[in-house]
Amino acid sequence: MDIKQYMQDVGRRARAASRRLAGATTAEKNAALLQLANAIRRDKAALIAANALDLAAARAAGLEAALLDRLALSEKGVDSMAEGVEQVAALADPIGEMTDIKFRPSGIQVGKMRVPLGVIGIIYEARPNVTADAAALCLKSGNAAILRGGSEAINCNRAIAALVHEALQAAGLPADSVQVIDTTDRAAVGELITLREFVDVIVPRGGKGLIARLLAEARVPMIQHLDGNCHVYLEEDADPNKALRIVENSKTQRYGTCNTTESLLVDRSVAAMLLPPIAHMLTGKGVEIRGCAETCAILPNAVAATEEDYYTEYLAPIISIKVVSGIDEAIAHINQYSSHHTEAIVTDNHPKAMRFLREVDSASVMINASTRFADGFEYGLGAEIGISTDKIHARGPVGLDGLTSQKWVVLGDGHVRA
Amino acid sequence: MDIKQYMQDVGRRARAASRRLAGATTAEKNAALLQLANAIRRDKAALIAANALDLAAARAAGLEAALLDRLALSEKGVDSMAEGVEQVAALADPIGEMTDIKFRPSGIQVGKMRVPLGVIGIIYEARPNVTADAAALCLKSGNAAILRGGSEAINCNRAIAALVHEALQAAGLPADSVQVIDTTDRAAVGELITLREFVDVIVPRGGKGLIARLLAEARVPMIQHLDGNCHVYLEEDADPNKALRIVENSKTQRYGTCNTTESLLVDRSVAAMLLPPIAHMLTGKGVEIRGCAETCAILPNAVAATEEDYYTEYLAPIISIKVVSGIDEAIAHINQYSSHHTEAIVTDNHPKAMRFLREVDSASVMINASTRFADGFEYGLGAEIGISTDKIHARGPVGLDGLTSQKWVVLGDGHVRA
Repeated sequence: MDIKQYMQDVGRRARAASRRLAGATTAEKNAALLQLANAIRRDKAALIAANALDLAAARAAGLEAALLDRLALSEKGVDSMAEGVEQVAALADPIGEMTDIKFRPSGIQVGKMRVPLGVIGIIYEARPNVTADAAALCLKSGNAAILRGGSEAINCNRAIAALVHEALQAAGLPADSVQVIDTTDRAAVGELITLREFVDVIVPRGGKGLIARLLAEARVPMIQHLDGNCHVYLEEDADPNKALRIVENSKTQRYGTCNTTESLLVDRSVAAMLLPPIAHMLTGKGVEIRGCAETCAILPNAVAATEEDYYTEYLAPIISIKVVSGIDEAIAHINQYSSHHTEAIVTDNHPKAMRFLREVDSASVMINASTRFADGFEYGLGAEIGISTDKIHARGPVGLDGLTSQKWVVLGDGHVRA
Repeated sequence: MDIKQYMQDVGRRARAASRRLAGATTAEKNAALLQLANAIRRDKAALIAANALDLAAARAAGLEAALLDRLALSEKGVDSMAEGVEQVAALADPIGEMTDIKFRPSGIQVGKMRVPLGVIGIIYEARPNVTADAAALCLKSGNAAILRGGSEAINCNRAIAALVHEALQAAGLPADSVQVIDTTDRAAVGELITLREFVDVIVPRGGKGLIARLLAEARVPMIQHLDGNCHVYLEEDADPNKALRIVENSKTQRYGTCNTTESLLVDRSVAAMLLPPIAHMLTGKGVEIRGCAETCAILPNAVAATEEDYYTEYLAPIISIKVVSGIDEAIAHINQYSSHHTEAIVTDNHPKAMRFLREVDSASVMINASTRFADGFEYGLGAEIGISTDKIHARGPVGLDGLTSQKWVVLGDGHVRA
């Protein structure tokens, strides 16, 4: 197989399908989604059998346990896959929304219309549920999708792709609206991320290793999500109870998520008061504390943090702590060390809270709330294709709107420019 | 001079200045802009003298007349430069705007805040007025700017840069908020467009040759503007008078602008009725007509169009014409041949007008209006940094909002995630 030729063909067919999808009605898109959910439930046994082939091959190849775990598809997993697709069907259609239509002095009306981006390439690891999920989000937002899942899931992905095609055709939409790349050759990824003519945006869903690799080679815009080195800053006017509760939830509710807090800043004037109960709570939960010299002087349990610690997303029961002189140093520290994902200030002081909101350069900035709230569902997006740590186009949790663009519309009645 | 080292330093200083600018008040930014306008008027003679040095060197180097014309700065040109800066000062500050703040079931309030992108790199040809204009737009939107103008304008750009720095310092803002690259070495551009760590977006302002070259090498997102191959489509239910007026304005008001119409589509059922008066008007203005076989059969003056003609932005008194079978073919033709800049339908049929709005994949789509309206001032943006033919981030005319991003803000009172 000539991979370059194959990917050009996939791209061309996606672009053609995207033209039809741009005019698809909400009813057509929802019919395809509901049919897909039904087909997934109907073919539960076949999907699990296809997944068993993938699992056997992956075990034979010595894939590590965590990856096998993500690859595995249970009966319950199939049910959630179908439910996820139904949830997307239930979301409001973002396409066609017209906003800000206003008369101009020339007599024309000018405003915006929300439209699909066109063709979206999604690159993800060996997780079969992402195939159905990504297909559903792209379809609902009127975009053609080119899906490239981890090669270890190829059998299951092919089986899901067949159901997606069946559902599209039953709804009168082109089967090419969703194409699953049917080769495990890694060169296909290199082609996909450089297909400027046919692909409008790439959404990588996977670890930061995957994304860093793609970023180095992509010629297509990417909605990128690198690491989540999130901070909580306890300002001088922090309420001690809120501070304890927010640090506990931000750090210890789950250790492996990108919106988990990895670093704690605290004002010098309140460090000796606030840190001991927080350290007691953290140590009680088995969290290792790595602190600056002042932190270590207050907390006998803390070990000395290195410069590198403050840049680190641990994804583990470890936290770095730094004592700062006040809000200026806190903001400067965060803007320097953070990955620009999510940061929270705990304070009852309004001007300082507003400064933090305005000057911290991250996708989500919070006052007196846990960083764990940074999530498409918690924000009310209904679904999430990813979380962007970039500033261009989409920032933070990306829902259906992030897969659209707004074009200008002009309504006249024979108007010409003077 | 080590260009790589120099550009790294420029980038680092721009990033540092951008942190201060993110917290600058509207009053500080406007004070700097008004001071800059005053300084431009005060130093009119010195600016013209610096420009005279550039012009003499450019003439000695044999620069062509059109480029010399763009490089030249007259007394009137200096006045418009100052007025342009004052107009930007008068615009509403886009920064800090909070929208869609809503309570979620968890008790937090979630919404968005508009903030600067950070550091913007602007690459443009040898036109001194762009230096002041770009500096003003970046400053008003709270962004640090790195300006790289055509090397033929280096003396005048240095003189303007000195005034910008004076104005920034008078307003208490960092001089590094606007840096003019002080070398004519072309390698500086190659460095600027790959400074991912320090530059958030590149805005190229210049011909499509410049942009195509940058696109091939850029590692920083770009607000790109390629060509403007704009269409007018005369649908079967077009009012003949509106059709004539709109074609006349779209094609002949100015030949060299990117929103000028280059190609006309007309439904077969009305071609014999609509084309002769339009051709009469065009021929009377010296416009050459290149048409499909059917067009040539109706219009004896027309010459045969090649496939290449339909892809061409003439920027000249030439128009291509094609007879189509109806709206399906018109939309397909435009999506194939257009540069996705601006397209207009002339029709009194509502469903067809709405289909055109929805399915034509261009930055501006119009009903019964001249394509010449696609412009930041006509759209009410107040100013324009460029026109984007891309779909990511900013589309069509880009005003101050296009130089910003929206981050998520979360307002809680000790809230944690369940």
